[in-house]
Amino acid sequence: MKHSPLVQGLIDAFTCLPGVGPRSAQRMAYHLLERNREGGRHLAAALGQAMDGVRQCERCRNFAEGGLCPVCADSRRDQGQVCVVSSPADVIAIEQSGEYRGRYFVLLGQLSPIDGMGPRQIGLDQLEEQVQAGSINEIILATGTTIEGEATAHYILEMVAGTAVTVSRIAQGVPMGGELEFVDGATLAHAFRGRRPV
Amino acid sequence: MKHSPLVQGLIDAFTCLPGVGPRSAQRMAYHLLERNREGGRHLAAALGQAMDGVRQCERCRNFAEGGLCPVCADSRRDQGQVCVVSSPADVIAIEQSGEYRGRYFVLLGQLSPIDGMGPRQIGLDQLEEQVQAGSINEIILATGTTIEGEATAHYILEMVAGTAVTVSRIAQGVPMGGELEFVDGATLAHAFRGRRPV
Repeated sequence: MKHSPLVQGLIDAFTCLPGVGPRSAQRMAYHLLERNREGGRHLAAALGQAMDGVRQCERCRNFAEGGLCPVCADSRRDQGQVCVVSSPADVIAIEQSGEYRGRYFVLLGQLSPIDGMGPRQIGLDQLEEQVQAGSINEIILATGTTIEGEATAHYILEMVAGTAVTVSRIAQGVPMGGELEFVDGATLAHAFRGRRPV
Repeated sequence: MKHSPLVQGLIDAFTCLPGVGPRSAQRMAYHLLERNREGGRHLAAALGQAMDGVRQCERCRNFAEGGLCPVCADSRRDQGQVCVVSSPADVIAIEQSGEYRGRYFVLLGQLSPIDGMGPRQIGLDQLEEQVQAGSINEIILATGTTIEGEATAHYILEMVAGTAVTVSRIAQGVPMGGELEFVDGATLAHAFRGRRPV
């Protein structure tokens, strides 16, 4: 089937979304063109604004629009308790469990020197500054159980050695080799309650 | 979970897509923000251009960018053979079968006076002009077997009465490769009534 160029361009562009192949992309393009052009224009505007306007939180590297993310800006959250995660999607998964009242530190990656991901690339220098400044009482490691996650956890343990910071790790219910963002909220809540000093 | 406003706006905007609920929308937004901002900007541009630039073909009402759609502009297609369908998505389905070499007429709806869809709203005045002008030899009805589809087919039959235009309807029956036990009763009844000597 030969679509007109703009339609074909839209179908191709939709395949950048996760889980969207050529058939779903075609269905999405046709749906918007046939039934919801206003929704399509709105999506275009929201995409443009978010891609350019969403930056990193100055304190935790999570998504933020200027200065601090909603969690770091929330004075009701315990700003001395820091949960270290790999990605913003992990923050969502933990927030949805409703268990955790501290803040986060988002690595945006894992320690993997072979892929060019050293401590600085995943912001560990920034975390170290916060540890040195004495603003952190407790670090909770939620970096996953992959080899890279273990390496990252190990690096952070070394980093805080000799300081008053306690380090624990979420333990119960996280399946081995599982991606944190796909774990259900109840399991994550268990994992937080069952954290153990390391 | 409180997302920052631009992120939340993007998640909400994604739910205008068919089959995309809040969870998938969140996954899409985070995927683009974390891993593919360039893809997100590209999608925004493609959406904006398509929503404003895709119009109707002057001859068949299918999607087109100026003047005629790719099928109506293709001189190798039989422009005197017209398949009448409800929506542009039906055109895609028929094109993908690779069987049909005529052109289309896209109603963008079905005859349903109670919903304010009269003959003019679905372009039947335009089809009648083409019939009167003598540019159509054959009409193939593919408007579906709903009550509205039947009404539309009936209206078109009356329209061409007294002209030289032949009217046929795509066969209704058991789908190819389909297990008989999963075919609904109405379809089976149709298949029996439409049986042919072999």
